[in-house]
Amino acid sequence: MIDKTKYPLLGTIDSPADLRALPEKQLPQVCEELRGFIIDSLANNPGHFASSLGAVELSVALHYVFATPEDKIVWDVGHQAYGHKILTGRRDRFDTNRKLGGLKPFPSPDESEYDSFVAGHASNSISAALGLAAAAKMKGSNEHVVAVIGDGSMSGGLAYEGLNNLANTPNNLLVILNDNNMSISNSVGGMSKLLVSMHSSKIYNKMRYGIAKGLRKMHILNEHRANSLIRFNNGLKSLIFRQQNFFEGMRARYFGPVNGNDVLELVRMLRSIKDMSGPHMLHIHTKKGKGWEPAEKDATAWHQPGLFDIESGERLVKPNSTPRFQDVFGETLVEMAKENERIVGITPAMPTGCSMHKLGDLFPDRFFDVGIAEGHAVTFSAGLAKGGMLPFCNIYSSFMQRGYDNLIHDAALQELDMVLCLDRAGLVGEDGPTHHGAFDLAYLRPIPNLTIASPYDECELRRLMFTAAQPGNGVFVIRYPRGQGSLRDWRCPLECVEVGKGRLMHEGNDVALLTIGPIGKVMEIVVEEAGRRGVSVAHYDMRFLKPVDEDILSEVGRKFKYIVTLEDGVVKGGLGGAVAEYMATNGFAPKIVSLGIPDNFVEHGAPEELYRICGMDKESLLDAILDFKGNKQ
Amino acid sequence: MIDKTKYPLLGTIDSPADLRALPEKQLPQVCEELRGFIIDSLANNPGHFASSLGAVELSVALHYVFATPEDKIVWDVGHQAYGHKILTGRRDRFDTNRKLGGLKPFPSPDESEYDSFVAGHASNSISAALGLAAAAKMKGSNEHVVAVIGDGSMSGGLAYEGLNNLANTPNNLLVILNDNNMSISNSVGGMSKLLVSMHSSKIYNKMRYGIAKGLRKMHILNEHRANSLIRFNNGLKSLIFRQQNFFEGMRARYFGPVNGNDVLELVRMLRSIKDMSGPHMLHIHTKKGKGWEPAEKDATAWHQPGLFDIESGERLVKPNSTPRFQDVFGETLVEMAKENERIVGITPAMPTGCSMHKLGDLFPDRFFDVGIAEGHAVTFSAGLAKGGMLPFCNIYSSFMQRGYDNLIHDAALQELDMVLCLDRAGLVGEDGPTHHGAFDLAYLRPIPNLTIASPYDECELRRLMFTAAQPGNGVFVIRYPRGQGSLRDWRCPLECVEVGKGRLMHEGNDVALLTIGPIGKVMEIVVEEAGRRGVSVAHYDMRFLKPVDEDILSEVGRKFKYIVTLEDGVVKGGLGGAVAEYMATNGFAPKIVSLGIPDNFVEHGAPEELYRICGMDKESLLDAILDFKGNKQ
Repeated sequence: MIDKTKYPLLGTIDSPADLRALPEKQLPQVCEELRGFIIDSLANNPGHFASSLGAVELSVALHYVFATPEDKIVWDVGHQAYGHKILTGRRDRFDTNRKLGGLKPFPSPDESEYDSFVAGHASNSISAALGLAAAAKMKGSNEHVVAVIGDGSMSGGLAYEGLNNLANTPNNLLVILNDNNMSISNSVGGMSKLLVSMHSSKIYNKMRYGIAKGLRKMHILNEHRANSLIRFNNGLKSLIFRQQNFFEGMRARYFGPVNGNDVLELVRMLRSIKDMSGPHMLHIHTKKGKGWEPAEKDATAWHQPGLFDIESGERLVKPNSTPRFQDVFGETLVEMAKENERIVGITPAMPTGCSMHKLGDLFPDRFFDVGIAEGHAVTFSAGLAKGGMLPFCNIYSSFMQRGYDNLIHDAALQELDMVLCLDRAGLVGEDGPTHHGAFDLAYLRPIPNLTIASPYDECELRRLMFTAAQPGNGVFVIRYPRGQGSLRDWRCPLECVEVGKGRLMHEGNDVALLTIGPIGKVMEIVVEEAGRRGVSVAHYDMRFLKPVDEDILSEVGRKFKYIVTLEDGVVKGGLGGAVAEYMATNGFAPKIVSLGIPDNFVEHGAPEELYRICGMDKESLLDAILDFKGNKQ
Repeated sequence: MIDKTKYPLLGTIDSPADLRALPEKQLPQVCEELRGFIIDSLANNPGHFASSLGAVELSVALHYVFATPEDKIVWDVGHQAYGHKILTGRRDRFDTNRKLGGLKPFPSPDESEYDSFVAGHASNSISAALGLAAAAKMKGSNEHVVAVIGDGSMSGGLAYEGLNNLANTPNNLLVILNDNNMSISNSVGGMSKLLVSMHSSKIYNKMRYGIAKGLRKMHILNEHRANSLIRFNNGLKSLIFRQQNFFEGMRARYFGPVNGNDVLELVRMLRSIKDMSGPHMLHIHTKKGKGWEPAEKDATAWHQPGLFDIESGERLVKPNSTPRFQDVFGETLVEMAKENERIVGITPAMPTGCSMHKLGDLFPDRFFDVGIAEGHAVTFSAGLAKGGMLPFCNIYSSFMQRGYDNLIHDAALQELDMVLCLDRAGLVGEDGPTHHGAFDLAYLRPIPNLTIASPYDECELRRLMFTAAQPGNGVFVIRYPRGQGSLRDWRCPLECVEVGKGRLMHEGNDVALLTIGPIGKVMEIVVEEAGRRGVSVAHYDMRFLKPVDEDILSEVGRKFKYIVTLEDGVVKGGLGGAVAEYMATNGFAPKIVSLGIPDNFVEHGAPEELYRICGMDKESLLDAILDFKGNKQ
C-alpha cells in the first residue's frame, strides 16, 4: 500500500479519472510524487529507469487531457510507461513489476484496458496506432488515438513505414515524438542529427518562447485563434529553416518542439491540438533520467540499472562470480579484430548490451552502431561481406525476427561469409514474452547456406567465434543466452572446432540426451544423478543445429530406443524437430521426448522460475530421463 | 545472335568497355537500339517490361561514366536492370532470360561480376551499397558505389534505415533515385507526394533549366566551378522551397531532379558528381514504359505483360481455362465484405497481383494499399484488428519474411483475430529463388496463436476464407500458390470447415500420403495410378498445419508403417517436420518419406520443370509411394 503521507496526491489516484478530477495547478505536485514513487520503487525492484523518469510529465498530461481508456495511448517500446502504469490502477501492485505472476514488463492489453497495444519491440507504435485510428474513423467513433514514440525508435524502418502511410489513410492520429536525444545507447543517424538541429537553432528558440508566451494569452482568449497561431508558427518555421521538416513532408501537421518536462505547457499544448482532424505530430523534448541526477548524467548506465541505494545514489552492482557471455563475446571480438583487420562489428543500438562497445573503443572505424534497425544491420553487414570485410553482426535473438528476410534474401542466398551472433537467445527472464529468444533455432533451420551453432560454455563461444571467422561457412550463426556462464577462466586458446560436429560428453547405454548450448552444461549434474538412480545416460553436446551431426544421430538411432532432446528454444522445428525428422526419414524408431520452450509461453519473471515452468529445469529433465524405465517395455 | 544490321551499335557492345569506347554523341542511338532490343526480346520471351524501358538511358549512362565492374552498381529490385544485363555481356543469351538454366530473373552476383548484389526484394539497395561503400573506404579502394532505387522502393522501411545511416558511416555512396512516380501499382504515401511536389514547383523548374544550361558551359571550362554551382543550386533550392528535402535532412547532398530519359544530360550530371566525397543523391525522373506507347499509358498492365504482338502492340493474354486462385480470393473477399462490414483489406503494393483491387473498386474506404511495406502492413492490420475490424492482409509468401517480427510481436502475442493470406506460396517459377514462397510453413509453425491452413482447391480457399472470418482463431493464415486452380466452377457456398481438421480423400491400406494445399489435388491421379500398380494409398488432405489434425496423425501412426508427406514448401520444419515430431514423440515408428522443396533450391524457370527437379512432380511421388514395396520387409 502506498504511503499517503509521503504521496498525498498520488495516493488518491486509483485511476485516471481521479487524476482528471484534480485542478490543473496540482499537476506539478502529482509529477513530483510520481517521480519519487518511481525512484523509490525501482531502487528496490529493478527495472527500466531513466526512460520512465523522463516521461513522467507526459504520462500525467496525457491522462489528464485525454479520456483514457476510451481514448487510446500507444506507447512505443514501453520502457517509458511506468508512470502510465502507476496512474492506471496498478500503483499498489507496482512492487510486483516484472516478477513472475506480477505486473508485466511492458504495456500489455491483457493486463489493463489502458494498455492499448503491445509495446516490447521498438518502432511499432505509429503503424499500430494508425490501425486503431483508422478503425475509429470507420466505426464513426470519436475516440482519440495517440502514439508516443521515442527518438531512438525513429531509427527503425517500421516507424517510417507508419509515417509514410499517415497521408493516405483517413485518421486523426496524434504522434508524440518523445525526443530525449538518446535511445538505449546514443541514437544514431541522419534522423537524430535532424532532430538535434531542430532544437539548436537560436532563431527558432527565440521565436518559440515568444510565441509560446503569446499562445498562453491567446488560449485564455480564444482557442480557435491559438490554433491558427500554432499553424502560422509552423509555416514561419518552414520558411526560416534551411533545415527540412521531415514530418511535414509526410503530411503530418507538426507542432513543437516543446519542453516535455513542463507538465502545464504539455497540458496546454495537448488541449490545443487534441481535436484537430488529420494526422498531427507533437515534438517534445524531455530529459532521460529527469530528477535523478546520476541518471541525468549517464542515462545509458541508468537505462536498466538494477538495484541502487536511494541515499547514496549508487548502483548496487553485484560482482559476477563468473563473467557473462557478453563479456566473453566483447573481449574475444577485440582479440580477434587485433589479428584480423577484415573483422568489423555491427550492432543495432545494443553496443553496451552485447559488449561490442569494446571493439568500438579500440577500433572506432571498424564499429558500426546502426541504431534500432535490425534489417539494415543484416543487409549492411551483407554489403560489407560482399565488399571483402568479415562482419560480426550482433543482434538480440528476439529482435533478429526483424531481420529475417534480410538474412534469407541479402545474406544466405548469396552464400556470403559473415558472422551473426544472437545474444539473449532462449528465455530472458523479466523482460518477458516479447523478448524471449525462443524462436531462432526453429526459424533459422530452414534457411540455406547457414551454419547454426550454440556454445556449451564460454570457451566454446570463443572457439565458435574463431571457427566462424574461417571462410566457407556461409552465414555463421552463434546463439547464446543473456548472463553468466559457468567458467571462471574462459581465456582458452582460440582454436577451430570442426563444423557440423558435436561431442559425446558422457557415455551411457540407456538413454541418449541430445542438448545444444549452455543448457547442456547446466545439466551435467542431472546426467550424474540419473546414473546414480540407475539410468545410464549418453550425453551429446550437438553444438551445431545446422549442419546437424548426422554421425551422432545415426549412432544414437542405432544404439538407443529412448532419446531426450533439450534446447533453450521452442521445440517445434528446432533441435527436437531436427532429431525427429532425421530418425523418421532414416528408418530409426526411437521414442523421443523433446524438452524446450512451449510455443505459447508468455510468462515473465526470474529465469530459474521460468525454466521450471517450461519443464527445462534439472528436476524436469531428470524426470524425463528416469521415465525411460517405464518406456523400456 | 544479334542482328547487326538492325542493331549496328548495340551489336558491337560485348561489354561496358565497348560502350565506353564510343563517342558521347552516339549514346542516344545506343539507347534507341537498346530499347528496341528489349521490346523485341520481351515480345517473344515474357518478363518485366515497363521498368527496364524507363531505365534504358540510366543503364547506358552508368556504364558509360563508371568503370564497371570495378565500380559497383546495386540495382534495387532489378525489374529495371534488363538494359544493364544486355550491356554487360549477356546480350546474346538474353533470349534465355528467366528460363530454366538461362539468365537469372534478377541481378545475381553468381551470374555476372557486373551484378554487385542480389536484387529480388525491394528497398535493400541503399543498405547493401552502403556496406560495399564502407568496405571500399576501409580497404582504401577508389571504387565508386552506386545504388539505384525506384520511388516505389522508397516506401520500404529498409530504404529509410539505409538513408538514416548515410550520415554516420564514412562513405562516398551515390544513391540514384529513379523516380517514375509508379511502383508496381501506384506508389503511395507521404514520400510519394513529397517527390511529386519536388517536380511540380514552377519556380524550381525554371531555375533548374537555367542552371543546367549554365552548368554545361561551366563544365567545359572548369569542373570545380561546375560542382560549386551545383552545390549553390542546392542551397538556393532549400531556401526557396517550403517543401522540405528529406534527403538533405539525411545529410546526403541532393542533386536534381533531372530528366532521366535524356542520356546526355545524365552523363554530364554523373560526371559532375561522381568523384564527390560523402554520400550524395541524384534524383532523376523517368517514364516507366518509355518508348512503347501502350506501356507509357498503362505501366501497371505492362509491368510484366506476358507475350505481346510487336506490330499491333496488343498483349497476347491467354484466356484461362480455370480461374486463378487470385481471382477466387478477390471475388470471395468482395462477396464476404458485402455481408460483413468489419472486413477490410490490406496489401503492400500488390492490389492487382493478389486481386484485392476488386475490394478497392467497390469499397475504397475499406481498402488499404500501404506501399512496399510488409512490416507496416502486418502491424497496421493488427491495429485495425485491435480496433474492432476484421483485416484480410494479403502478402506474397516470400515478402512475408519482411513482416515476421510484426506477425509474432504485434499480432500473435496479442492473440488478435485477423486473416493473413499468403499469395505466391510454394515455387513461383520464373521469378526464381528470391521469390519462391518456400519457407512460410516452416517459419510460421513455431509461432503461437496462429491457425495455418492451405486450400486443396478453389472451393476450399473460399471455405477457409469464410472460416477465417469467424472469431477465436487468432491470426488465421491461408497460403496458396500463384496461378490457376483446378475447378471451372468454384462458386461453392460459403461454409465453415472445422478448424484443425483434415480429410481422408482416398482410402488405402499400404501407404499413407499426407499432403497440404493444392499440390494434393494435383496428385489425385498418382494415388489412382499407385493403386493400379498394387500399392493402396490412403490420401489425407491435412488442410491445417496448425493446429495439426492429431486424430489423423494418430490413426496414421497406428495403421501405417510407411508414410509419404508432400508439401509445396521446404521440408525442414514444415509438414514433414510436424509429422515426424508427432510420430517420434508419440511412440509411433513409421518410416517417413518427406517430399518438398530442398532448402538450398535456387533454380528458376517454368514451374513444371522446377517441380520435377525438386522431386515434387507426379513421377517422383509415384516412385516414393511404390518404394513402399522395397521397405515392406
